[in-house]
Amino acid sequence: MSKVRVHNFAISLDGFGTGAGQAPDAPFGHAGERLHEWMFATRFWGEMTGAQGGGSGADHAFAAMHGPGIGAEIMGAGKFGPPGWQDDPGYRGWWGPNPPFHTPTFVLTHRPRPAIEMEGGTTFHFLDASPAEALATAREAAGGQDVRLGGGPSVIRDFLAEGLVDHMHVVQVPILLGRGVRLWDGLESLEDTYDIEAVSTPSGVTHLTFTNKRL
Amino acid sequence: MSKVRVHNFAISLDGFGTGAGQAPDAPFGHAGERLHEWMFATRFWGEMTGAQGGGSGADHAFAAMHGPGIGAEIMGAGKFGPPGWQDDPGYRGWWGPNPPFHTPTFVLTHRPRPAIEMEGGTTFHFLDASPAEALATAREAAGGQDVRLGGGPSVIRDFLAEGLVDHMHVVQVPILLGRGVRLWDGLESLEDTYDIEAVSTPSGVTHLTFTNKRL
Repeated sequence: MSKVRVHNFAISLDGFGTGAGQAPDAPFGHAGERLHEWMFATRFWGEMTGAQGGGSGADHAFAAMHGPGIGAEIMGAGKFGPPGWQDDPGYRGWWGPNPPFHTPTFVLTHRPRPAIEMEGGTTFHFLDASPAEALATAREAAGGQDVRLGGGPSVIRDFLAEGLVDHMHVVQVPILLGRGVRLWDGLESLEDTYDIEAVSTPSGVTHLTFTNKRL
Repeated sequence: MSKVRVHNFAISLDGFGTGAGQAPDAPFGHAGERLHEWMFATRFWGEMTGAQGGGSGADHAFAAMHGPGIGAEIMGAGKFGPPGWQDDPGYRGWWGPNPPFHTPTFVLTHRPRPAIEMEGGTTFHFLDASPAEALATAREAAGGQDVRLGGGPSVIRDFLAEGLVDHMHVVQVPILLGRGVRLWDGLESLEDTYDIEAVSTPSGVTHLTFTNKRL
């Protein structure tokens, strides 16, 4: 069966995956871009954005696993747009005309709307569904490939709590945000379900990988 | 001036330095010994306990910095004994007759009592004092050597919030406790004050070191 994978999900040392105060010009709230500077410095990012350049070390190796083998993504409403985007019927997401997903992408929202086809293979579909229902739909759309769970933190937490995640890559960035949305709440004993590896890299981040023990 | 140092302070991935339900037979509550297994496996621990054996790698190197150069320790009431120890006038702490501190050791409590002299150089003094006041007292007792801040999490947090910590060594253990006392609450932007290094080791833990930028 196809896998459910989380990639490049960044958190602060105190566990926040999003800062406080998410807004149109601040997708990660007061965290700004600080959770992702490690990724902007990789060759993966240079190639994806056309900017070229970037390092080829461990941070790149982890980051580059984002795309291969993925046939669909599931994301929370907060990854599609800022609070209140549901009130704008013409809103097309804060990812620009050619979003970096390139597959069917399922946005979880209690106020679904018709699908939006973007450039580059991304089509946004809107679902009001439980994690298991959303996964069944995304898996169907993925045509045998894996499903990427894109975040944010509360969506990943919900899927973890239901045991639906197979591989998870979390990147711990050495900053303390103090406020925002925490990834780890309510996940006591997650280590019983996952083999966990940690590796720190010269950029200062620590990559944490979780592999479901049933695999 | 002598430094204030934190050593071997272990937390879970979700940031808890103590589990829930601290009790006479459970100094770390439901965490049990899981936060410290990495340390029990080091030569440092083998030598300290007389059990001998243990690894000599990075975990040992970090752990062994606990003793040298320290002239006094400050600890919270919860590191001296379980909740309610203040009600027992004969209580001598849960560290046995020869506690592993070997210096004057200052226990912060709102109900101070006369000092207790133990074997091996540890004398417990009891202080009802602010962090800065306690530090002045401990520094005096340390005779020019450094002061170790022994925890628990809320004591370390209080000293960090007042900018009193020079070096801090935190060990992140790959378990999720879900409940207990968190280290990181209310410490937004700690990275502005400290240079932070992370290094993961083969045992699976990640050592985080904080060096005050004013040093």
